[in-house]
Amino acid sequence: MKAPLFERITVIGLGLIGSSILRRVMQDKTLAHFVIGSDNNPAVCERVEALKIADEVYLDPVQAVANSDCVILCMPVGVMGEVAKKIIPAMKSGAILIDTGSTKESVIEAIQPYLRDDISFVPCHPMAGTEFSGPDAGFASLFENRWCLLTPCKSTTEDALEKITYFWQKMGAQTRNLPIKHHDKVCAIVSHLPHLLAFTICNTADHLADETRSEVLDYAASGFRDFTRIAASDPTMWRDVFLNNREAILEMLARFIEDTQAMARAIRWGDEDYIVNSIKNGRAIRQSLIDNKQVQ
Amino acid sequence: MKAPLFERITVIGLGLIGSSILRRVMQDKTLAHFVIGSDNNPAVCERVEALKIADEVYLDPVQAVANSDCVILCMPVGVMGEVAKKIIPAMKSGAILIDTGSTKESVIEAIQPYLRDDISFVPCHPMAGTEFSGPDAGFASLFENRWCLLTPCKSTTEDALEKITYFWQKMGAQTRNLPIKHHDKVCAIVSHLPHLLAFTICNTADHLADETRSEVLDYAASGFRDFTRIAASDPTMWRDVFLNNREAILEMLARFIEDTQAMARAIRWGDEDYIVNSIKNGRAIRQSLIDNKQVQ
Repeated sequence: MKAPLFERITVIGLGLIGSSILRRVMQDKTLAHFVIGSDNNPAVCERVEALKIADEVYLDPVQAVANSDCVILCMPVGVMGEVAKKIIPAMKSGAILIDTGSTKESVIEAIQPYLRDDISFVPCHPMAGTEFSGPDAGFASLFENRWCLLTPCKSTTEDALEKITYFWQKMGAQTRNLPIKHHDKVCAIVSHLPHLLAFTICNTADHLADETRSEVLDYAASGFRDFTRIAASDPTMWRDVFLNNREAILEMLARFIEDTQAMARAIRWGDEDYIVNSIKNGRAIRQSLIDNKQVQ
Repeated sequence: MKAPLFERITVIGLGLIGSSILRRVMQDKTLAHFVIGSDNNPAVCERVEALKIADEVYLDPVQAVANSDCVILCMPVGVMGEVAKKIIPAMKSGAILIDTGSTKESVIEAIQPYLRDDISFVPCHPMAGTEFSGPDAGFASLFENRWCLLTPCKSTTEDALEKITYFWQKMGAQTRNLPIKHHDKVCAIVSHLPHLLAFTICNTADHLADETRSEVLDYAASGFRDFTRIAASDPTMWRDVFLNNREAILEMLARFIEDTQAMARAIRWGDEDYIVNSIKNGRAIRQSLIDNKQVQ
């Protein structure tokens, strides 16, 4: 029998992403012989033990990484540096460290100071998620047919990049390498800004006069419903994303507000051509997504 | 056998909404003996004939309304006045006219000047739709478990209101009566503004540098995907909604932009509490929708 990709894998942070990785790795013995989970919340550790989706579970991340060949960080991006600082001194020589954060420049900056020469770091962003969180929300097929973007940095070795690319492909994902800053800009518009707008419109509705607000809840048409689906995502994770991709998000938001003001002006002055062109462009983008098989 | 609610029903405008009404009425012989469709697009008329979802189809709406007991307007709200002007003189004495537009004050203002004393007008807004349009997009269960809001006006008789309430309930909808202006304000936030934002973010993405734009399409995460689903709706219909609910939409948009700017400021200055509270509020609204059974 061929040796697995890694002898021991440790996943730290066992929410939606981390627990989905555990589930998949436990099913596929070509990826690891031994699977370790760790979370700073004792209730989450207990739940993961009960779910039997790891061979061992530790509250202490330092214990969890000992002797592991691959350590995967799945906590909110704002605490990745802090966790890296704790675990890196305890990691095995030659091991690979990867993260799964939605922002890449900030995560690399946070982790880089603690890296050792004998550890390779591969920054990863699996573009998968649902509006649910916690270890019960995960499932083994979460990454199937989704993108996993890799943004190699100066601490990424060729060999580690190749292994981790193969790892994500075995998780069912399509992989691509992207420059770090470019990744953050693209994600600001495709993911971070839509989430910011979804949270905001829920707040705008919430601030309406009581009478209107109760009816907003009653009559939420499909438009608002779709927005609230996005808005149901995890608060800490998204707070960290917003704060850690600040520049790109503020730039995209400024462009978006300009475009929104232009639309408001067109509505105020009855500029039918502008309105229809904007709507048609929206449809064209949708069509491109269908052609790219990003939507059913 | 009990007489049906109406002897003859005419549906004018055979897109998603109109063709769905036809399909449902054709299935339920307690609603009408004879079902007539009309559309100003010959290709649509031909398609409706081929689909056999009406007993008769006319290109000319004046011919289509003759002898009908109930006439249902299903075209974009911007042309309802024009169609009403044409058909009302040809309508049978005692007949009921209803519309299905997403804005109510503008539609009532557009139709009122042409009304006759012997015709009752019941303004209706079935809150149902998909991102598809045209006669092939309709289906008989479109209105099931959805709201249909009625906004009685000075030309609405008690008797007509009762019949039309029953009609929508037989279509599967829940009905409620709302004051006209109040309806327009609630719909501005729950439906019109979300659509406006969805169209706009697609445009913002489309205006990015070519390199980024192609990747936006490649990596559209779930956030952006949900937005584009909304943005795939019919351009003429939405242009008319925006122009015909101008005041309420501009008011809600102004509030929303204030809230967005406050969020941008919180991100720029790292105000974690503000960000987390906004996200938590969004989740709370989502939870209320689930409690109200507006989402699965």
